[in-house]
Amino acid sequence: MKRRLFTPGPTPVPEEITLAMAAPLPHHRTPEFQETMRRTHELLQRVYRTPDPVVVLSASGTGAMEAAVVNLTHPGEKVLSVNGGKFGARWGELLCTFGRDVEELQIAWGESVTPEQVHDGLSRSGARIVFVTHSETSTAALCDLQQISQVTRDLDAVLVVDAITSLGAHRLETQRWDLGCVIGGSQKAFMMPPGLSFLSLSERARARIDGNPTPRYYFDLNKALQGVGQGRTPFTPAISLLLGLERSCQRILEEGLEAVWLRHQLLADAVRAGAAAMRLKPVATRPSNAVTAVYAPDGTSADAVRDCVWRRFGIKLAGGQGSLLGRILRIGHLGAYDAADVLQVLCALEEALHEHGHPVQPGAATAAARSSLAQLDAVPQRGAP
Amino acid sequence: MKRRLFTPGPTPVPEEITLAMAAPLPHHRTPEFQETMRRTHELLQRVYRTPDPVVVLSASGTGAMEAAVVNLTHPGEKVLSVNGGKFGARWGELLCTFGRDVEELQIAWGESVTPEQVHDGLSRSGARIVFVTHSETSTAALCDLQQISQVTRDLDAVLVVDAITSLGAHRLETQRWDLGCVIGGSQKAFMMPPGLSFLSLSERARARIDGNPTPRYYFDLNKALQGVGQGRTPFTPAISLLLGLERSCQRILEEGLEAVWLRHQLLADAVRAGAAAMRLKPVATRPSNAVTAVYAPDGTSADAVRDCVWRRFGIKLAGGQGSLLGRILRIGHLGAYDAADVLQVLCALEEALHEHGHPVQPGAATAAARSSLAQLDAVPQRGAP
Repeated sequence: MKRRLFTPGPTPVPEEITLAMAAPLPHHRTPEFQETMRRTHELLQRVYRTPDPVVVLSASGTGAMEAAVVNLTHPGEKVLSVNGGKFGARWGELLCTFGRDVEELQIAWGESVTPEQVHDGLSRSGARIVFVTHSETSTAALCDLQQISQVTRDLDAVLVVDAITSLGAHRLETQRWDLGCVIGGSQKAFMMPPGLSFLSLSERARARIDGNPTPRYYFDLNKALQGVGQGRTPFTPAISLLLGLERSCQRILEEGLEAVWLRHQLLADAVRAGAAAMRLKPVATRPSNAVTAVYAPDGTSADAVRDCVWRRFGIKLAGGQGSLLGRILRIGHLGAYDAADVLQVLCALEEALHEHGHPVQPGAATAAARSSLAQLDAVPQRGAP
Repeated sequence: MKRRLFTPGPTPVPEEITLAMAAPLPHHRTPEFQETMRRTHELLQRVYRTPDPVVVLSASGTGAMEAAVVNLTHPGEKVLSVNGGKFGARWGELLCTFGRDVEELQIAWGESVTPEQVHDGLSRSGARIVFVTHSETSTAALCDLQQISQVTRDLDAVLVVDAITSLGAHRLETQRWDLGCVIGGSQKAFMMPPGLSFLSLSERARARIDGNPTPRYYFDLNKALQGVGQGRTPFTPAISLLLGLERSCQRILEEGLEAVWLRHQLLADAVRAGAAAMRLKPVATRPSNAVTAVYAPDGTSADAVRDCVWRRFGIKLAGGQGSLLGRILRIGHLGAYDAADVLQVLCALEEALHEHGHPVQPGAATAAARSSLAQLDAVPQRGAP
């Protein structure tokens, strides 16, 4: 049986990226590899939509989150942190670990922080930096980053964004929205294995790095910034993954960022319509296009349904985390997915729900997905015949 | 032209490891992948020669060095650090960055710290932990780790070893020598791309972690230790590299650790004999079997010779770092190398030296290497016909 990932990271790796990573290793201190790094940096800037530097770290996303905390905030500094799920909670844990004075905005799981809440939090606390999660992977909730960035701009605060599951799936305008620091990860919309993470740094964010007394070494962004334009890294980088990253960025830009975002929108619409047709209640009020989270029907075990689609169809879905453990199903659709993938996962879910005592009219889910998928025909897609 | 790495990391990646890394990604929170991690952990213990836990980090070697510093030493603690090259200096930089009270043993570049110097340093400073570099890659000098471990055991100190270029190339008995923490990296004798690093932790080392007030998150070894026996990691690991690591450890153990060490010894002997025949003066008094460093002949530019073997033969040699920049050549021979590789690099070096005004009797280097290479016939080698 084939194995199929429908998880919000890792996501399927296209063959051309796998092949790029399988090339003989160049040495990292050669003009040849530094030129690869330099080109990849420019490609990342285009994916991020910013002329500002984007640092690549050989670490997973949490490493980049730690780098943001230890470089952009000072010991004891008052900071605002938004916590609406497992990854929002991680911001708070990191900030507390490094001794910041954390004002945490608690958001009910499944809800999205509002611009007004950020405004009130900043006004109340006096913080001049705020940490948010764009697409909260544990609940599939998306916040309105553009509106929130308007608030932080008005209040002269730096906005640090965990965009690990949104970058490359949702419109994100790093420069235009004046985002201070945007964090991405390789195993999400970048269609790569995990092991690399990225941070963009605006001028105001960079100004916070110099003179910051927080001890740091591997995650010292000043060291990383020094070589970024020349393709040099302070420590040995994960070379094979970086070879894949260049291909990944090229792939995204060849499809076209607007087309990639629209594809994610339409695939997510289709999955949500299919889930509704199966009478599956969404977890998120304002859902992300990266992943769809739904409650298991009453009397049905979410994990039994997940196990069934895995055993019978080789399809891996994610379950719940934290307070949602065992209660929800999460269907990932960020990265290299297309219309036929959505049909496949919806059909398999119909079958599994049927088997687990939640009868669904056969074909109801895919029929409900039809109109969104049909709109994909008008979107330029890579590899389309 | 083919490209050939003769650098002390990255080193050539065998096809079977590349193919293992190119497999479809399993999800990291599955019994299937956790079983891979669990098996890999056991294999690593065998390579390390210890029943103690060996933590794998998704970061390059410097990340593991930082993890050792922030977990095993306390703020303000008196520590002894040995600095005989670029990587010894890194221990000092890390320890100072995190506010440790560092007593640094300065060793002339090319020399190796002696057990007596470590004894005196510990006695004088009162430190109860010491940081050493087993094989100092910048000078190709090796220290006598077994003898040094005798000193640290006698003085009741914990020994932390950067074994990044020695593990898998030199005999290293983590348990028998009572080494507190041994650090390895994937792109060295493990024949992998960079991106993973490893730390073994003895019981005494682990006792230093609990209650350590140093702020840490991504590199918190307590978090990593909790899941290590079950194949769980606190954060998303670099999955594809981990698939390669299992194959890499299997490959080392199938060849046999003793045979791997002996192969490195004989290849290094051969390269050193060849270098001597070309009248190239070694940098290290007590040379490592991982890499050979030699001074460029008087009147010859080391970097011009390196450039020549690169341009004419696609062979990548390393140059000097720090105070040896531009003055030396470094020939890497750790990882997947064999007798024919040594013949090739020696011949190419003969040609390049000849072209750059340092005449060498044709065939002198390979003839000098002959007796060491002949002894390889008696060593079991993977893939031997």
